Amino acid sequence: MALVVQKYGGTSVADADRICSVARRIVDTYSEPNDVVAVVSAMGTGTDDLIALAEAVSDRSHPREMDMLLTAGERVTMALVAMAIQDLGVPATSLTGSQAGILTTGRHGRAEIVEIRANRVREGLDEGKVVIVAGFQGVDPDSKDVTTLGRGGSDATAVALAAALSADRCEIYTDVDGVFTADPRVVPGALKIDEVSFEEMLELASGGAGVLMPRSVEFGRRFGIPIHVRSSFHDGEGTWVKEETMEQAVVRGIAHDISEAKLTVYRVPDTPGVAASLFEPLADAGVTIDMIVQNVSQEGSTDISFTVPLAMLDVAEEVTKTVAEDVNAGGVSTDREIAKVSIVGIGMKTESGIASRMFRILADHDINIQMISTSPIRISCVIAEDRVSEAVSALHAGLELDGEALQ
Amino acid sequence: MALVVQKYGGTSVADADRICSVARRIVDTYSEPNDVVAVVSAMGTGTDDLIALAEAVSDRSHPREMDMLLTAGERVTMALVAMAIQDLGVPATSLTGSQAGILTTGRHGRAEIVEIRANRVREGLDEGKVVIVAGFQGVDPDSKDVTTLGRGGSDATAVALAAALSADRCEIYTDVDGVFTADPRVVPGALKIDEVSFEEMLELASGGAGVLMPRSVEFGRRFGIPIHVRSSFHDGEGTWVKEETMEQAVVRGIAHDISEAKLTVYRVPDTPGVAASLFEPLADAGVTIDMIVQNVSQEGSTDISFTVPLAMLDVAEEVTKTVAEDVNAGGVSTDREIAKVSIVGIGMKTESGIASRMFRILADHDINIQMISTSPIRISCVIAEDRVSEAVSALHAGLELDGEALQ
Repeated sequence: MALVVQKYGGTSVADADRICSVARRIVDTYSEPNDVVAVVSAMGTGTDDLIALAEAVSDRSHPREMDMLLTAGERVTMALVAMAIQDLGVPATSLTGSQAGILTTGRHGRAEIVEIRANRVREGLDEGKVVIVAGFQGVDPDSKDVTTLGRGGSDATAVALAAALSADRCEIYTDVDGVFTADPRVVPGALKIDEVSFEEMLELASGGAGVLMPRSVEFGRRFGIPIHVRSSFHDGEGTWVKEETMEQAVVRGIAHDISEAKLTVYRVPDTPGVAASLFEPLADAGVTIDMIVQNVSQEGSTDISFTVPLAMLDVAEEVTKTVAEDVNAGGVSTDREIAKVSIVGIGMKTESGIASRMFRILADHDINIQMISTSPIRISCVIAEDRVSEAVSALHAGLELDGEALQ
Repeated sequence: MALVVQKYGGTSVADADRICSVARRIVDTYSEPNDVVAVVSAMGTGTDDLIALAEAVSDRSHPREMDMLLTAGERVTMALVAMAIQDLGVPATSLTGSQAGILTTGRHGRAEIVEIRANRVREGLDEGKVVIVAGFQGVDPDSKDVTTLGRGGSDATAVALAAALSADRCEIYTDVDGVFTADPRVVPGALKIDEVSFEEMLELASGGAGVLMPRSVEFGRRFGIPIHVRSSFHDGEGTWVKEETMEQAVVRGIAHDISEAKLTVYRVPDTPGVAASLFEPLADAGVTIDMIVQNVSQEGSTDISFTVPLAMLDVAEEVTKTVAEDVNAGGVSTDREIAKVSIVGIGMKTESGIASRMFRILADHDINIQMISTSPIRISCVIAEDRVSEAVSALHAGLELDGEALQ
């Protein structure tokens, strides 16, 4: 008998009806037969509603109490899903993150899973029960405080549990059909991808494809757990994220991200240690940096540009300005109106000329490239935010992702 | 420095504004200075909303999952209250029932507190923090499952915690000013009682005075913790429930209860063991019995009447009819339209003639008495439900509770 870990996101459990249909799907999987562990998120806007409540009470940051508050969300879902499954005649039990042994770091709001002590989950399975586990949450074993894993945390719970239990597969149920060659809201002709490698999915997720968070992909890769991203609304196959794919696409898909802002420090003296003196204080301030581009030096100084999440721009700007003064740089500018467009494909490792095709397509549409960054299987360009739909559509057509992908 | 345990019910924490004013009240108590433990309920209709959700998903009984679901309610409140207190510059931490060491029996929905291991609460107090504890919930140490204590459970949490911590006092904040000589909604001239003994409060609570549940009074009595029932909307003194009161009233107050139904078994053969053969199967079926009245035997048979909660009437009727047939009784009748009116006062122990005054007042209003039951400090009459307001008002005036109480 196979062990399947399933994860149902907020839209899949948004109301009583959907919870009942999730229960039916779980029971179907159980009856094949399989052992089933189902990880659930808070219902629909449940988490946002709780955040709004907290904001009505307080305008400050309360990391520990915020985690205590938010974990009420999955608690509601998991109990309801367990009830609905029991009504279908299948034994089920629900466990909080803490009860399921999801041990994390103590960093409230962005805790990381460090270990899973899944004995209560295993006991439930041994008793023939479906085990429902609250996603997104865990417990810091030192303080015994409840923690949350941050955005996309339920996916991480599911994949990490699948790894800890040596599950045969992990199914991520969502409100879309799978991973697409581009965001279908931007490119109506985008196609569902049948298979994508962990490596490619990591790049797509980091590039802004919201369907999976990078760290859950990383868990899957590290422990070799195939992830099936699929719709909770029908039975069709979704996208398999796995180690090796049958076909090696040169370009597997396009991701874009408008959630970042750009900072540029002008005329930084080109001396050893200057980059460290900039990025160390930013790291200390908790600013996460995405792209960093440093141009070649001219006349002993250089320009450094980097991107940060929009929400961290104010902090980043303050830190950066202080450092810029300290190192006698020429000045600091910021730009909120940027977008990052990335093309990803494992075949780029061997196929050359993809970068120049990307730049040509953007040039033909008169779209200016502000920053470029590459990995062996990805090319990312930062462009103006108001050109992002045009850029993604043009690249999707120009790179022939709409039907006849470059092979 | 004194240790104060406070409890805030659902209406006291119904929205963000009220949560902030509860936080101010807690901080005021902390600043006197005192050590403060605050027990909180779910916000306003929070528990009812969760029950409605469960009913939308399932029409069956799921005791374990229902408890998992409902405990989300206090979790939300306690986190929000802790945030609001921190915003006022006072350190605070919230603990679930399980984290606070509230160990209970495993009976979901109606668990009883068996032990409190309050070390995490004490640690919080030792660190100078206000400790917020989720009311109404605990954990069964055997199964490690979360439990709830049933109706009035948050009061029980507060008084039991006060006992475990040897608190100097326990304050129950509510939406009324205290305990009244009668329900002020029925008798507008009802007066707030300044002091009432545990014994009297137990009888009033059992008689239907909803402001405190019997078992929290019982905790207070057993461990000698004075309970101050007071309004969360102003600073005025409420009612002190304590061992000895300054004044020994003959009649302290009137309670009434319309949540019960009456069953009568006619012409029960008057042989030893017949009562046991009726009430044992009722107990086995989980029916809680309140009053039992058995008349003197006539011609070898007797009538037995008893009252049960309305919600249990159907089960009780079924069981009773089976037993009635088995023992060759004459028949069974039920009546949903009854009310119980009780007058309570410690002075009744020594003062005679109170019962006859009660019966006379009811007779003067042409109110028929269906059942009578007494304790040393209480007299209860069952009457028709549609006469209850008139009966309570008449007794309140006739026993001179409206200003010049019988002393």
